[in-house]
Amino acid sequence: MTAPTHLPAPPSDRTRIRRIAENADYHRSTLHAVLDAAYVCQIAFVDDKGTHCIPTACWREGEHLYIHGSNGGRLIKLLAKGTQACVTVTHIDGLVLARSAFNHSMNYRSAMVYGQFEKVNDKASALDTFMRHLAPGREQQARPGSAKELAATTVMRISLEEAACKVRSGGPNDDAEDMNLPVWAGVLPMRSQRMAPVPDALSSAPAPDYVQHWAN
Amino acid sequence: MTAPTHLPAPPSDRTRIRRIAENADYHRSTLHAVLDAAYVCQIAFVDDKGTHCIPTACWREGEHLYIHGSNGGRLIKLLAKGTQACVTVTHIDGLVLARSAFNHSMNYRSAMVYGQFEKVNDKASALDTFMRHLAPGREQQARPGSAKELAATTVMRISLEEAACKVRSGGPNDDAEDMNLPVWAGVLPMRSQRMAPVPDALSSAPAPDYVQHWAN
Repeated sequence: MTAPTHLPAPPSDRTRIRRIAENADYHRSTLHAVLDAAYVCQIAFVDDKGTHCIPTACWREGEHLYIHGSNGGRLIKLLAKGTQACVTVTHIDGLVLARSAFNHSMNYRSAMVYGQFEKVNDKASALDTFMRHLAPGREQQARPGSAKELAATTVMRISLEEAACKVRSGGPNDDAEDMNLPVWAGVLPMRSQRMAPVPDALSSAPAPDYVQHWAN
Repeated sequence: MTAPTHLPAPPSDRTRIRRIAENADYHRSTLHAVLDAAYVCQIAFVDDKGTHCIPTACWREGEHLYIHGSNGGRLIKLLAKGTQACVTVTHIDGLVLARSAFNHSMNYRSAMVYGQFEKVNDKASALDTFMRHLAPGREQQARPGSAKELAATTVMRISLEEAACKVRSGGPNDDAEDMNLPVWAGVLPMRSQRMAPVPDALSSAPAPDYVQHWAN
C-alpha cells in the first residue's frame, strides 16, 4: 500500500539516512517535488564490466519514475534483465559559506530511489506524459511517433516505494566560538534559469505558450 | 603518461561511447571544463546492500577529481577499501524541441570517470583548493580546520585516466520529410544562475569580492 503523500514513508535499511540525519526527508510530497523539478536522473547499475552511472532523461507519473531509450542501448538492455538500480536526482540551491572552513556546506535537494526497472507496455501514452513534462501541450503538436519509431524505443519505470530525499536549506551553522570572527557568512544561492528560446532557423511556426512563457 | 590536453585520449572499453557516438568527446580540455563547472558529482559503487549512487561535492586539481567526507560516512568507508567507482557529472543546457516527438532531445555536457579512489595525505592543502573552487580567496579568510576537524575528515581522489565526455549542443535534427510541419522547433535553453547573496543575519563583516561578484 502506498503511504498518503502527507505522511513520511518508513525508510528501508538502504534508504535510512545516517549521515547528517536531520536533513533526511521521507515525505512523498518532497520526493515528488524533487523528481518533478528534474529533467535528468543518474542511474547506477552493475554489469560484467563493473559499476556504471549513466545520466538519462526522466519523468514521474504517480508512484513511478520513467525513462526511455533505444532498444539497443546498454542501459536499457541491462535494466530489462531486472538488474538492481539506484537512481539519483540532485539539485544544488546554493553554497553555504560559514565562518570556519569545516562548517561550509551546500543547500540542495536530492532524491534516491532503489529498485528494479520494468518495461512499460503503453509506450505512446507514457511518452506523451514525458512530452507534457517537457512542454505541456506539445504532445498534441509534434508529429507523433510512427510505428517504427515506437518499436525502436523502450520505456521503463521504477517504483518509488524504496526512496528517500535529503534536503538542506538556510544559512550556515557555525560553532558558537566562531560567531565573532570577522569573516562574511551567508549563502550564495543558485537556481536553474530558463533563458530566451532559440527558434530553429528553418522554423516559421508561431511560438506556442510553453515557448512564449519559457524564460523566467 | 598523461595525454596533452589538446589531443583526445583513447577511450577504454568502458569509456567508448556507442550510443549517439557523434556526441562523444575524449578531449581532456572538455573533461576539465565539464568537471570544473560542477559543484557536485554522483558516485556509483557497490556494497553488500547493492548498487548505490550518492551525490557529493567535488573539485578537480590536475588529472584527479577530489571529494571529501566524514571518516565515518558510508561512501568514504567503502571507497577507502578500493571499491571500483563510476563518477558522473551532468549539466543540462536546454530542451531541444524537434518537429517530431521522436527527434526531441536535450543539450547537455556530461562526464564519466571510472576507477578507484585513493586517500589524499595532504588534506589541508586539498581542502584549500576546494575552498578556492567555491570562493577564490576564502581559504585565506575562513577559520582553517583545526587538528581535530582535519582528523575527522577524509579527502579522496580518483584519476581522470579512464574518462569520457558526451556533449550535445545546437538545434533539432529533424527528418527531411518533417521539415514543413507547422510546428515550432528550436531550443529552450537553461543555465545555472547565480542569485543575490543572502548574508547571515548575525554577520557584519564586509562582503568580499567573490560575494560582491557572485550574482550574474
